Formats: sequence, C-alpha cells, structure tokens
Amino acid sequence: MIVVMSPSATKAQVTAVRRTVEAHGLQAFVSVGQERTVVGVVGTDVEQVANIGSLDGVEQVIRVTQPYKLASAEHHPERTRVVVGGVPIGQGEELVAIAGPCSVESRQMLLDTARWVRHEGARMLRGGAFKPRTSPYAFQGLGRPALELLAEARAETGLPVVSEVTDAADVELMGSSVDVLQVGSRNMHNFVLLRAVGQSARPVLLKRGFGATIEEWLMAAEYVLSSGNSDVILCERGIRTFETATRNTLDLSAVPLLRRHTHLPIAVDPSHGTGQRDLVAPMALAAAAAGADALLIEVHPDPPNALSDGPQSLSFPEFGALMDELRRLQFVRNGAAAAGDGDQSNIALIDSAVHSSIDLAFRTPAPSLNLLVMCSIVSFKAAPNVSSTPSSRIATAGKLAVRRALRVRSIASMGVTSGRSRLLY
Amino acid sequence: MIVVMSPSATKAQVTAVRRTVEAHGLQAFVSVGQERTVVGVVGTDVEQVANIGSLDGVEQVIRVTQPYKLASAEHHPERTRVVVGGVPIGQGEELVAIAGPCSVESRQMLLDTARWVRHEGARMLRGGAFKPRTSPYAFQGLGRPALELLAEARAETGLPVVSEVTDAADVELMGSSVDVLQVGSRNMHNFVLLRAVGQSARPVLLKRGFGATIEEWLMAAEYVLSSGNSDVILCERGIRTFETATRNTLDLSAVPLLRRHTHLPIAVDPSHGTGQRDLVAPMALAAAAAGADALLIEVHPDPPNALSDGPQSLSFPEFGALMDELRRLQFVRNGAAAAGDGDQSNIALIDSAVHSSIDLAFRTPAPSLNLLVMCSIVSFKAAPNVSSTPSSRIATAGKLAVRRALRVRSIASMGVTSGRSRLLY
Amino acid sequence: MIVVMSPSATKAQVTAVRRTVEAHGLQAFVSVGQERTVVGVVGTDVEQVANIGSLDGVEQVIRVTQPYKLASAEHHPERTRVVVGGVPIGQGEELVAIAGPCSVESRQMLLDTARWVRHEGARMLRGGAFKPRTSPYAFQGLGRPALELLAEARAETGLPVVSEVTDAADVELMGSSVDVLQVGSRNMHNFVLLRAVGQSARPVLLKRGFGATIEEWLMAAEYVLSSGNSDVILCERGIRTFETATRNTLDLSAVPLLRRHTHLPIAVDPSHGTGQRDLVAPMALAAAAAGADALLIEVHPDPPNALSDGPQSLSFPEFGALMDELRRLQFVRNGAAAAGDGDQSNIALIDSAVHSSIDLAFRTPAPSLNLLVMCSIVSFKAAPNVSSTPSSRIATAGKLAVRRALRVRSIASMGVTSGRSRLLY
Amino acid sequence: MIVVMSPSATKAQVTAVRRTVEAHGLQAFVSVGQERTVVGVVGTDVEQVANIGSLDGVEQVIRVTQPYKLASAEHHPERTRVVVGGVPIGQGEELVAIAGPCSVESRQMLLDTARWVRHEGARMLRGGAFKPRTSPYAFQGLGRPALELLAEARAETGLPVVSEVTDAADVELMGSSVDVLQVGSRNMHNFVLLRAVGQSARPVLLKRGFGATIEEWLMAAEYVLSSGNSDVILCERGIRTFETATRNTLDLSAVPLLRRHTHLPIAVDPSHGTGQRDLVAPMALAAAAAGADALLIEVHPDPPNALSDGPQSLSFPEFGALMDELRRLQFVRNGAAAAGDGDQSNIALIDSAVHSSIDLAFRTPAPSLNLLVMCSIVSFKAAPNVSSTPSSRIATAGKLAVRRALRVRSIASMGVTSGRSRLLY
Repeated sequence: MIVVMSPSATKAQVTAVRRTVEAHGLQAFVSVGQERTVVGVVGTDVEQVANIGSLDGVEQVIRVTQPYKLASAEHHPERTRVVVGGVPIGQGEELVAIAGPCSVESRQMLLDTARWVRHEGARMLRGGAFKPRTSPYAFQGLGRPALELLAEARAETGLPVVSEVTDAADVELMGSSVDVLQVGSRNMHNFVLLRAVGQSARPVLLKRGFGATIEEWLMAAEYVLSSGNSDVILCERGIRTFETATRNTLDLSAVPLLRRHTHLPIAVDPSHGTGQRDLVAPMALAAAAAGADALLIEVHPDPPNALSDGPQSLSFPEFGALMDELRRLQFVRNGAAAAGDGDQSNIALIDSAVHSSIDLAFRTPAPSLNLLVMCSIVSFKAAPNVSSTPSSRIATAGKLAVRRALRVRSIASMGVTSGRSRLLY
Repeated sequence: MIVVMSPSATKAQVTAVRRTVEAHGLQAFVSVGQERTVVGVVGTDVEQVANIGSLDGVEQVIRVTQPYKLASAEHHPERTRVVVGGVPIGQGEELVAIAGPCSVESRQMLLDTARWVRHEGARMLRGGAFKPRTSPYAFQGLGRPALELLAEARAETGLPVVSEVTDAADVELMGSSVDVLQVGSRNMHNFVLLRAVGQSARPVLLKRGFGATIEEWLMAAEYVLSSGNSDVILCERGIRTFETATRNTLDLSAVPLLRRHTHLPIAVDPSHGTGQRDLVAPMALAAAAAGADALLIEVHPDPPNALSDGPQSLSFPEFGALMDELRRLQFVRNGAAAAGDGDQSNIALIDSAVHSSIDLAFRTPAPSLNLLVMCSIVSFKAAPNVSSTPSSRIATAGKLAVRRALRVRSIASMGVTSGRSRLLY
Repeated sequence: MIVVMSPSATKAQVTAVRRTVEAHGLQAFVSVGQERTVVGVVGTDVEQVANIGSLDGVEQVIRVTQPYKLASAEHHPERTRVVVGGVPIGQGEELVAIAGPCSVESRQMLLDTARWVRHEGARMLRGGAFKPRTSPYAFQGLGRPALELLAEARAETGLPVVSEVTDAADVELMGSSVDVLQVGSRNMHNFVLLRAVGQSARPVLLKRGFGATIEEWLMAAEYVLSSGNSDVILCERGIRTFETATRNTLDLSAVPLLRRHTHLPIAVDPSHGTGQRDLVAPMALAAAAAGADALLIEVHPDPPNALSDGPQSLSFPEFGALMDELRRLQFVRNGAAAAGDGDQSNIALIDSAVHSSIDLAFRTPAPSLNLLVMCSIVSFKAAPNVSSTPSSRIATAGKLAVRRALRVRSIASMGVTSGRSRLLY
Repeated sequence: MIVVMSPSATKAQVTAVRRTVEAHGLQAFVSVGQERTVVGVVGTDVEQVANIGSLDGVEQVIRVTQPYKLASAEHHPERTRVVVGGVPIGQGEELVAIAGPCSVESRQMLLDTARWVRHEGARMLRGGAFKPRTSPYAFQGLGRPALELLAEARAETGLPVVSEVTDAADVELMGSSVDVLQVGSRNMHNFVLLRAVGQSARPVLLKRGFGATIEEWLMAAEYVLSSGNSDVILCERGIRTFETATRNTLDLSAVPLLRRHTHLPIAVDPSHGTGQRDLVAPMALAAAAAGADALLIEVHPDPPNALSDGPQSLSFPEFGALMDELRRLQFVRNGAAAAGDGDQSNIALIDSAVHSSIDLAFRTPAPSLNLLVMCSIVSFKAAPNVSSTPSSRIATAGKLAVRRALRVRSIASMGVTSGRSRLLY
C-alpha cells in the first residue's frame, strides 16, 4: 500500500501517517519526492490501515497488491480444470459449448432442445428454473418442476446441467438436481448467496455483474473459494456502457486479462452479451479466438414465442451452423495447443487434417471417395505419434470427422451455412 | 408497444406480426411510412408479445408504457409520505437528515454518534449491523449484537433506526429491531430479498443499484410494493461511470426525474455518492436544492480509525457545520413550500424570519439584544396567521431559532464554519 | 511516479528498471515489500520514463503528481477571477447567469431573448453562430451573420456575449465579435483549437467533453493556459453514462472537486446536462448550492419551434421563475459569503432582509402596504453598516427588491411559480 | 417518427401535435392506446419537427428511421471495397494488417519497422506525424519531417501509408504525402475536420470516438460521405467504460453490428483498444473472428523506449507471432469464403492444405523432407480446379507456404511462439 501525501502536507502529518502505520505492526518507508512525500506500507495485513486516507494531509491511498488471494494466478500458476459430469473445462481443454433455453418452459421444448444441442456437439445443457426478472410481472420460471424436467433431460441425453440459483435457501435443493450452480449477473454482489454456493459440493458458474469491474468479479469468486468450494467457472456476459445498440457491451478483453490474473476457467455468454440473435455467432467465434474455455449459448425451438429472452435465442439451425463454425476455428486452436502435448492432441491433429482434406475434396464438382481416403491416409501418416495412439481412437476420430464434414455439406446445401458465412466474413 | 419493421420487410412479414398480436387478444394498428412500416400494439397486457422482435422483418420493439404501475405517479398523483417512528418523509415535509456511522463498531461509538447527530438536528439514526463488503476478508459488521446496540441507541435518543438487511432469512429478525429496512445498492436486483422486505411491516429504504437505470430502480420498488409493502423510500447513492475521481457519480438529476415519474419519497446519500469527506457537504446541499426529501450522511467519531468507509465519513464538527448550512437552505425551501399550507408552515416562516434577523444582528460588531428582539417582533407580526398558531409553539420556534443562531456563531468563532464556507462558496 | 513490479519479477528486472530511471537523470528508490517490489521515481521530469511499463517484470506504473501545472491549485492557491466586459466570474463573486438561445435563429428572436434575460437578471448572453451538430443535415447555425446580430444584441443590452468557436481558422474573426470564446464538449480534445484560443486575447469557456475525465478536462485547460491565455472558465455540462433517462448525467460533484484541484472559475450548464426542460431549474439550483460560479441556461421565445435544442430550452416565464428561485438561494449564499466582506455584501444583506419581509407580507390574505414598509425599515436598520453605505445604493436595492417581490407575486398568480414550487420541493 | 403523448395529455394537446406535424407538410397518424395516445409522423423530412417534444403533453419522441443515409446499408446493400495503393479493404477481401509505430520517431526506427512489418505480411504502414496528446507537454510528433520519412518508407517497401490528420488546414499537405487520412478518436466529433477530409481525394480511416455511440460514429462517416468522399473505413478502437483494468473496452460487437447497418469496411485497433501489449494478440484474433476487414497494430523496435504508446506496442517478434496466428485463422476464413469463388480461392485452399500438412510434418521429432513433399503433392491433387490454375501461381503459393512454415518453426525454436500459444489457448 502506498500513501501519497498532498504537496502541502506538513512534517507532522507525515509523522502521523508513519506512526499510525507502525501502530498496526506494519512498516512505513517514507520517501520525499520533488513535490510530494510518499509513504510505502509493508506488512502482512496492510488492509488494517485501509482508512488512513482520512488522516489530514493524505491525498491518495494506492493498493499495489491484489485483494484476492485464492483466485489469483500469482500463488496458483497452473490453470484450474473444473470437471462437470466428466466434462473438463479449462486448462487447455477443448472449448465446451453449454447450450439450451433461457428458461425451461415445458417438458417437450426442453427435451427437444436438449437432444438437438447434444446432436450438434454441445457438452452441457443450460436451462433456467428460477428466473430473476426485472419486472415482478414477468414470467419468473417454472421453479421446482423445472428442476425435475432438467433431471430428465440429463438422464436422457447424458448432458450435465447448469441452472441458476437465486436464493441461498435453494442451494441444497438445486445442488441435488443440477450439476453446476449458476450465480447470475444481478446476484454477483449477493454475498449471502456467494457464501451459500461456496459451501455446496457443486461447481459454480459465476457470471460477471453487468456493473462490476474485473477485480470485483474476482473478489466475488474469492467469496466462493474462501467458503470452501474450489470449482468456480467465471462467465463474462457483457457490461453496461453508454452504448445502447446492444443490450450489453461484451467485454472480450476480460478473457486474456483473466488469463493473466487468475487460474480459474473462463466462459463467455454471447447471448446476454449482445441481446441480438444475429450477433451471437460472430461474438461466439470471437470469444473462442480470444481464448475462452467455454461458451454459454441460448437456443430455443421457437424464439419468437419464447417466454424469456426470445430476441437473443438461436433457432436450431442457427445453433448448428454456429457449432460448425466453432469446429473450424477449433481445429486451428487445437493445432496450436498441440505443440508438445501428448496423445490427446494427436487425435485433434488427425481430426484437423482429415477435415481439411475432406473439405478440399468436397469442393470438387464430384468428390471421389478415393480422394477422401487418400487424403486421410496421408494425414494419418503425417501425424507424429500415430503409432502410439490406440487405433480405435484414430478410427473414431476419422469417422467423426467424416460425419461432421458430411453434415456441413448438407447444411450448406440448405443455404444456412452460406448465409452465415456471408455474415461472418 | 410499437413494432418497427425493417425497410426490407415484406407484406407477409407485416401480416405475421399483425396476426401474432391479434392471436394474443391485442389490437394491431399498421401504418405504412416513407421507409418503414410501423405496427402499434394496443391492449391490456402488451407484454405478452414482448418477444415479437424475434419475428422476421422486425427491426425494433419500443415500449411506450411504463413497466411499473404501483410506483408510477401516473396512477397516484399525490406524493406518498412515509412516517417512520413519528418522522414523516416525503410529500413536502421538511428535509430529514438520517445520520450515523457506516457500521456499528462498539457500544460507545454508536451512542456517542447517536447523541451527537440528534443534538445537531438529525431525525433518524443509520448504522450497519450486516455489512456487504467487496472483500470476504474485510470487516463484515458485528451482526446481531449490533442490532441490540441500535435498539439501545434508539431507546436513549428517540431516533428511529435505519439498518441494512442483506439476507431474506434475516428480515423478520431485523424487523423486530430496526425501524427501516435498508436494501443496499448491491442487492437492488436481489429479487428474493425485495420480495421478503415487501412482506415486512417495516418501511423500506431502497438504494439505487450503482449499475441500475432509474427505470430498473423503480421496477425494484415495484417488487416491494407488489408484495404488499407500500412504504418505500428511494435513495440515490451514485452510479458507476468512467470517472474515477469520485467513488461514484452522484446522479442528482434522478431527484427531479423521480418527482415526475413516481410518488415515492426520495433520499440522497452523498457519502457513498462521492466517497470523499470534503465533497459530502456541497453535494448534500445540492441534493437539498434539487428537492430531496431526506439525506443519508455517514458520521464517525474518529474517521481515520473507522472499520469501514472512513474516507467518506464526516467528523462530529463537520456534521454540525453541514446541518447549519442545510438549515439556512431549508429556510429558503420552507418559504416556498409554505405557500398555501397551514399551521406548520407558519412556524417555519417565523423561524426563518427570526433567523434572518438574528443573522443580520450578529454581523454588527456588537449585536444588541434590543435589535434581536425588535427583529423578532416584526417578523412575528408579519407572519400571516400568527393569531391562529398556539403561542407555545411560537415561543418554542423562537427559542429554537435563537439557540441555533447562537450555535452557528460559536462554531464560526471556532473557525469551522468559516472553513466550510470558503469551501462551499 | 511509482513503478510496481510483479510478484514474479527477478532482481535483474528490478535492476533494469532502476538503471533506466537513472539513465534519464532521475532518482530511483527501491523498496521491497511482502509480495512486491516498488520503485519510486523522483526528479524534475518523471514523464521521461512514462513508458517504463513496457520493461519486463513491471506490473503497473502509477503517477502521483498531477499532470497539469498551470491549472493546478497547488501552485496557485488563490482562486482566479475572470472579468468579462465588467462582469466578474469566480473567486467568491455572485453567481453569474449566462442565458440565451442555443443558436441565433433570427434578429428578432435574439433581441427579444437578450432583452428578457437581462430583465430577469442574466449578466451575460449566450447564442450560437456556428453549431456543431451530430447530423450533417441538421441546422448548423447562421454563421457570420449571427455574429453581427450578437454584436447588436450586446450593444443594445450591454450584456457581454459567449459564443462557440468550432474552427481554429475562425478564432480571430470570432474574437473581434464576441466576448468569450466557447469551446464545446465535442471539441474539448481538439488540441489544434485549444491552442488557437489559447493565443487569443478573449476569455475561454471550456466545456467538459462528455466522455472526458476531470483530469483530462484540466489537461485541456492546460493547453489553453500554456498557450498564453490565463482566462479560462470551466463548464460542466454532463457526462455520458449508461442512464438514458436524461440526455447526459450532470456530474455536480465535479464542482467541489474542481474547487480542490484548480483555481479556475467553474460554470455549470444544466440545459445540456439534462436535456429536459423541467429538470433545468432543479439542477440549476443544485449547481448553485454545490458552489458553481456561473450557470449557462438555454432560453428560447418559443421552444417547440426552436431550430436546435428545443426540448431543453426554457420559455421566458420559466426562466424568470428560475431566476427568482436562484435569488432566494443566493441570499443564503451571500449571507455566508458576506462574513467579513465590505460594502457590497451589505447591499445583499439588505436585499435579502427586504425580500424575506415582503415575502411574509405577501402571504397574508390582504397584504397591507404599511406592513411592507415597516418590514423594510426594520430590515434596513438591522443591517450592520447601513450608515457607511451610500444611500442611493440602499434606495436602489430596496426598490429592486420590491419590484422583484411584486413580479414573483404576479407570476405566482399566473400559476407558474406555484407549479415550479411543487415540482421542486 | 413517433410522438408518444403522456397519459394525462388532453385532446387539445393531441390536436396541437397533429396540427404542428401537418403544418410542415407531413402526415400524422393518431392512434389511441389503453393508456397513451401515439402519433405517427410520416413524410420526407420528419426531422423538421424534431423539437415537437417541447409541446405540452408530449412525453417522448422516438425516431424510427436511421439518421444516416449514405452510410446506411439500407440503400446500398453491396459492401464497399476501398482500394488503397492497390490493397483492397472490405467486401470479403482478405484481412489486411496495417502496422507500424504509434509515432514516427526517427528515420531509422521507421524504416526498420516498415521493413519488418512488410516482411511479416502487413499490407499497409501506419505512423503518426502529428500526435494529439492529452498533455501539452508530451511529445506531439515530428510533424512535417515525419511526412517525408513516411514517403521514403513507402517508396522503399511499397506499403501504402496511413497517418493521422488533426487540423483541417493540414488536409491538403497530408493528402500529398500519405495514402489514407486517419481521423483520430478524439476528433471524431470535429465536424470541421470531417468536412475537410470529405473534400480530399484520399480515403479516410475514421476511428470511433471513445465516447461515441455507433450511430454517432456513422453520422460522422456521413459528414465525410456527404462532403463527396466515398472511401471511408471505420475503425473500432475501444470505448470508455467504468472498467479500468484496460485502457478502453474494445467493443467487438460493433463489428457484426456495423455489418448489419453499413456497407463501409470495418477495421479494429486492438492496440488502443486494450492499451496492453499482452492483450493485443488475443484481441486481434478475436476481431478477425468477429469479421473485421482490417487490423491496426502498433509495432515498435523497442517498446520501453517509445516516445508514445510504448506499453501497447508489440515488439518485432511479437508482431511476427501474431501474424502467424492470424494466418492460421485466416485459412479457416478463406476456406469458408472460398465456397463458390473462382481462381483466387484455389490458391488459398492450396496454401491452406500445404500449410496444414507441413505443420503436421514439423511436429514429428525429425521431419523428413519426403513427408513434406508427399503432403504437398496430395494436397495439390486434392484441390479442385488445379488444372485451371496457372502453374506459376501454384508454385508461388507452394513456396510461400513452405517459407512461412519454416519461419514459424524457427521462431518457435526461439521460444516466442510457444509463449504466445500458452497465453492464447
């Protein structure tokens, strides 16, 4: 902590600052500058003298240590990986898409959506049971019945479930039904709730308050961590600025900034971050390129009739197109990530190479299967440690890549992909 | 609600909008403009089609009715007066000063502060028992023991008590100990808490979220009101902007704006609004001039050693000086407010006139008591319905005015007032 | 300047910082903290090493001296008084109202407005000749012909004229026609223009950029001051925030903050600051209470048909009512300001006392002229140094007060003042 | 334009609105809602009644047409391509990197930087001659001599030059020395300058004002366009928000939003947008993924000793690493963009395939040249219309790809790429 004295501060005032510091068992280093005297405060708990700015002659008090400890990368250099129902998030793992409706509206719509997003490659399901709404007269979620529906969707699809908890009293109930407890943007400063989820065994997805600085957000994470729960995923979802053309201003620079300051995994929610359907895909891709570990995407079978957040929900085909784009981007990311990694990354490399080759093949007027096969073989051979990779996994990777490529093609022929492509690039 | 179609919208898309509107039992008025078609939606619950923006061809959906009903001045033209332990706030009543420490730190400091602020003219006591702090490691308030101390301070001074509630589970407990339940800025969007205080019999002081628009703030009030509690006092406390020279940007234009939109009483907290001791007094005066019904002021016997919010707490003499300034301003306000009012305002007018006269008298090198008396008599006679005012109250008013004037003078001679004056003007 | 090293910084990196500092002839004080090493940089021009943050191992660079010198109160403790055509602004002078239309639209409207605002007590006239408009298709001002009309209005009313200059090439031309060169909010960062007005002999009214911090604003003033022009008046006019209920958020805390940091006079523009006619008066009063030296108010003979800024322009009666309110407030301020002042303040005190008395008298159902006269006489006698005040000035003050009071009354009977009063208090 | 009446508006007030509208030759459609009456205004220039909000009984005036015409995509569906010295920007062209120092500091540093950025694949050179600085005491650029150095750098490297113009009086001079006139963020609202560059024959790069909405930015473009210059490139560079962890908040959602609203090319400046060296690369990639047409990157041979913007300038190796990352991303983009394109895209596909293959090859512990060649051959054969592509171009593409791959490898062995990779993913 640094105490900057005003230029007109007297010697007695500087002495008073020094004495106050020392009275708390801290050390004070006084250095006299051209215009101002500056007092450096050193010790184990400098926050004891946080109010020293009230002493006469003090102009400014500057903290130089980060106020968060458990969330800080300083004391925890390796990045944290949070595993949810077998799905790892963070620490260089593949980008995880978490998708589903804003709120659970009915059994049918939930199951339809869950099946579709799994089909398209989402790894987790989102869906609100308790919805915090600005208006007391707006749809507030189905509540408990929605939890049962979410459990059913999980049972059927195998997708772990993320759902928002709004009341500390609900944490236990929710914890028994869902896999990840979401703390929403409006509750990021609800310290009672943060403590409650901190005592749960469930991982927590902590959204950034729309009016919160990154430091405050990490302090909110610190509440959860210091209550005993070390599985926290941060989720950027846009901040409030003067710009009204978007619902919020998605602050993607938070992603690399958090990489520097914290070891926790980082998700991005481009649905709330933009509030507009046609901005979701470009911003999802941008988030992935900036280094996000996970994405939260709102998907709805019939956006215009959604009970909440319709204007920002993707339709089923839109979500599919986005997932294809993300996979293309992911191939690039995986390639880079692979440098020096072991077995897992070989699969990714193979996948990437196969896909590229197939892509080329498809662009011929009449793609021959031979060409496909040839490409694959060459790519396989090119992969460095192919021999050490279980052949079953290679086969799986190859098949998956072919299937994906085929779907891209068929969707493209429906005019969806080409529409998106034009939008994006 | 107005649905603005994009310029390229087809007739079929306009028809789809119209049909969707009508399918919900609402009326649609289509008007074709030079560039765009606009569909006006009329009916009892237009929010049913809130997501119509997801339909193809829709560019923008504009709400023209206010989303809050109970908080709105439209249906409630007379202003609300909330009475707390006999102290009325709102509806043209005298400005109420609510003062006290940020948090209750000990019995002694609380009682000292309570006595002083009452002595200086505060009508209510503030003091935190449960403190929401950004850091989990910072002092979080004394909790329940603080409630007992607050009750003791109330018993001794007669001042009703305002204290913050942070947990819905605490509402009943708090309600039995304090007179007004404060919902803090960070909890303005905590709908669970809003509902809980809405079911309490205690008045609620609802602070504006530092990232909340005025409309959202009124929607938060609507949560409380629609839960059955009609005693809501709004409190502006600064919003978050790009300016870092102050802790927050105190948005005083909220005061007259709220006058237009709501009937609820309006308080202002210049302590949190600025975060800096020497800005508190000027902004308190500005808030009063803008039309605030109440002020929340942090006062501490020893700011540099406060456990929370030291840099923005006034010392005892600073608070006294501010109260004197406020009274001067109040005389002007009362004069204007008196037009057409009855008995109460006569007292105020007399008070004002006596004070002005005494003020003049004091400025003579040797003020004569005769002059004082003469001024008072003339002023008394000038007051319109003096005859109908109980003489005991006139006497009280006169005495009070003389006492105040004498204190102003003695403080001035201690150099405090003159210091402030220089700052302010 | 303080250089904060990252916790992982090596000794070599700290040494590199120290050497870089010393290589520029500056001194480096290294202090090793619990977690971080901090290097204090001391010397005459620490800005030389402003980019030291690029060195490896540096986490943060903190400036502790203010970057502005000429604008700073540190080296210039007495406040500056800028005199414009005989009207003094700043340094404890009476609040100056600067009023007039947003833009000069015609000879008739300008003269009508100029006459009215002078009649109501404005001391300066504002009026735009060159209007910076967001849209290239909007009315851009009459240009040069407007300058001639402004000169005519000045000649007739004696009011000095403020008008905005938007082009460095126009500074000389404008300087020969108007008394104060206004630099608008959108040009606060137009350094070419700042330098040009800095070389003019005319005082400059420098509006705050709507996206500018107070420090940047003072740096803009520094451009003018360092170019040779020491007559700068700062004008707060609202900043851009997330709140859309007002055109801007008027940052009144800038007023006391500037008092602390600079010696320059401070004006406030509640018209642009709010953008809404009915918020102008309350915010003007608040600005006065916060300690502003001057107010900029837009007045128009027919706001609905104004070519620019109609929604925020006051009509003639609205402006009159505001000036009366300001005078009431001013009486309080003058009283405080008067302590220790000489002749001028006696006039103000007399004025205040007379006004108060008349006010009381008017509130009787049938005010008798006798009562009026009696009040006045007593008040006169009560004034301390009446004998030393020229009797002609006392007479003038008395007459003015009576005239004002009568006007207040007649306007009140038109329902205007009472409307405002209800709004304000 | 839609005029929303207040709920208490009288019939006479509605009539007054209607008459005012009709008096300007516009049509008024009155529709009576449940709570409010709404008046739709239709006609060729509805801005004529822009101030109708001042009429009694009007609550709100809502514009539904975009105020910009020439910049709007509505009347100009095909995207604009601005060609600068042979380099096309916009309309689906390859992402253009514009790189160079913040300001020209000396002949040597400019030439070194220009050579390096060209070597790494930048297509244009940036460099400031006239620097708008917040402080009048900071380095303001070399001025005219810098223009000559920029011309020399262009002559040697063939890179077209972008440089900022700050004074309308300099437009002609600058236009004869540089290829693109940059209007900086602080001058986005300097309408005199916008008009001046609008009359130049040079393309204009228009940065977003850090406090400007997207609509205002497009209005600024409209100033340039309506002055006769149709070559405008928009450049997002971050907006000012409450977040202080970054210099600005880079608003990448502006990129897809502008795609929807305008036909003009879109650039992004991640250097100013973040202000921090280690955030530049991730945000550059994110901007590319969001669909930017060009990137502005600050590069300096020795950032710690830069005279301006050192903390956000990339070093030479950092810039090289970023360009490699961008190329990887670009391969994905090109692949998508290529669908349906002709000859040019084949080159890109080949390039992509070769690169992927080489990449794989390099990851083997000892990459054999045979493998490299094999990969290339297969990829070539896989390309669809290889036969129709001139063989010389195929050869060039192949060589280029090999060269790039080799450089990636050598840089990686210096530990630079791997450092970045870890940061990014």
